[in-house]
Amino acid sequence: MTEFAKSPLNKVVRGPNRAQYDKDEVYKIVDSHFLCHLAYVYEGTPIVIPTGYGRVGDTVFVHGSSKNRMLNALLKNESVSATVTHMDGIVLARSVFHHSFNYRSAVLFGKPRLVSDWDEKMEALKVITDNIIKGRWEEARSPNTKEMKATIVMAIDITDASAKVRAEGANDEPHDMDLDVWAGVLPLDITVGAPLKNKDCKPGLETPDSITNFRGLS
Amino acid sequence: MTEFAKSPLNKVVRGPNRAQYDKDEVYKIVDSHFLCHLAYVYEGTPIVIPTGYGRVGDTVFVHGSSKNRMLNALLKNESVSATVTHMDGIVLARSVFHHSFNYRSAVLFGKPRLVSDWDEKMEALKVITDNIIKGRWEEARSPNTKEMKATIVMAIDITDASAKVRAEGANDEPHDMDLDVWAGVLPLDITVGAPLKNKDCKPGLETPDSITNFRGLS
Repeated sequence: MTEFAKSPLNKVVRGPNRAQYDKDEVYKIVDSHFLCHLAYVYEGTPIVIPTGYGRVGDTVFVHGSSKNRMLNALLKNESVSATVTHMDGIVLARSVFHHSFNYRSAVLFGKPRLVSDWDEKMEALKVITDNIIKGRWEEARSPNTKEMKATIVMAIDITDASAKVRAEGANDEPHDMDLDVWAGVLPLDITVGAPLKNKDCKPGLETPDSITNFRGLS
Repeated sequence: MTEFAKSPLNKVVRGPNRAQYDKDEVYKIVDSHFLCHLAYVYEGTPIVIPTGYGRVGDTVFVHGSSKNRMLNALLKNESVSATVTHMDGIVLARSVFHHSFNYRSAVLFGKPRLVSDWDEKMEALKVITDNIIKGRWEEARSPNTKEMKATIVMAIDITDASAKVRAEGANDEPHDMDLDVWAGVLPLDITVGAPLKNKDCKPGLETPDSITNFRGLS
């Protein structure tokens, strides 16, 4: 499968010209970020929570405390979704109506699964850690038994997905083109600042490779 | 009311030491961003969608096409929520377990309401536009009748809210402090690039004040 089938679940209803179902395109968006938003329903109210993630093949992993209300609720669902959003810019059109954002967003759908196998759980935590900051898993102390027990890992085995991308200038109505209004894009990007070393960091430790090689979030 | 009452809905279960219910603190987080994530439930699956917003008093406004599946679904809910997330940095601890993010996030809960009054709807669109980029409403052509009809505005009259903030260095276990592992924070920020003028922009138009005065997203 190189393209996700369109279903009522993942079919992009608005702005379908910007919709993408190609697996490589969807995963490119997913793999260049590390923060997703998940939603669960608490007493009838959908609640959205941001969390880190990592992907291997057609599976996305997230983790949390074993007491995490959202993960425990989601694990009871037949189907869940995770949304990844890159905000790339503000599109300023001549008309208010055609203002927009440039963005890349992906929604992944799948069946949630509690990762209980020790080795898969450890591997999932490595995948999440290294998706956030590659190479960090090898630098830091691995989780011990107590920490593993205090953590739950949820896998989402992806069955459907879609992406939406807007990456262009302002598009106005023909009758607005002569207005004296500037049109264009104000680009936004996530940038990395200088590392802030802990004051209690052991003397002599240099900035680790994981930071030096950080891929950024573009 | 200067503090949101704690209820099972908005009570922060995990990491309560980082929880905030003070209205000024919550709204400071909300007012320094323009992108929120909303969730709706489609055939049992919670789906998260990013969208722009603006706030006035205890009301948050979002908008979309009159055919927008999410907004039309949410308007049937008794209660909805909107989540705002600032990702401020990656926290690198000595142990994998204590890795974290520095972030500011707010979740607003309330009753959804279709804004059908013409004046309130126009004002809501101004609020959303100016929260994304202040001053733009006055620069661009206002929505006409056709555009207003093609748009729905949803108000969320806020009844509960909470925020979570982490803004500190790595916190490790005492027995890990002597490990030869760098600990600290890799700061992340959303930065603004040089404006990209549309190729079809009318000659002679200078970069508008809304861009020059853009507040950023920190």
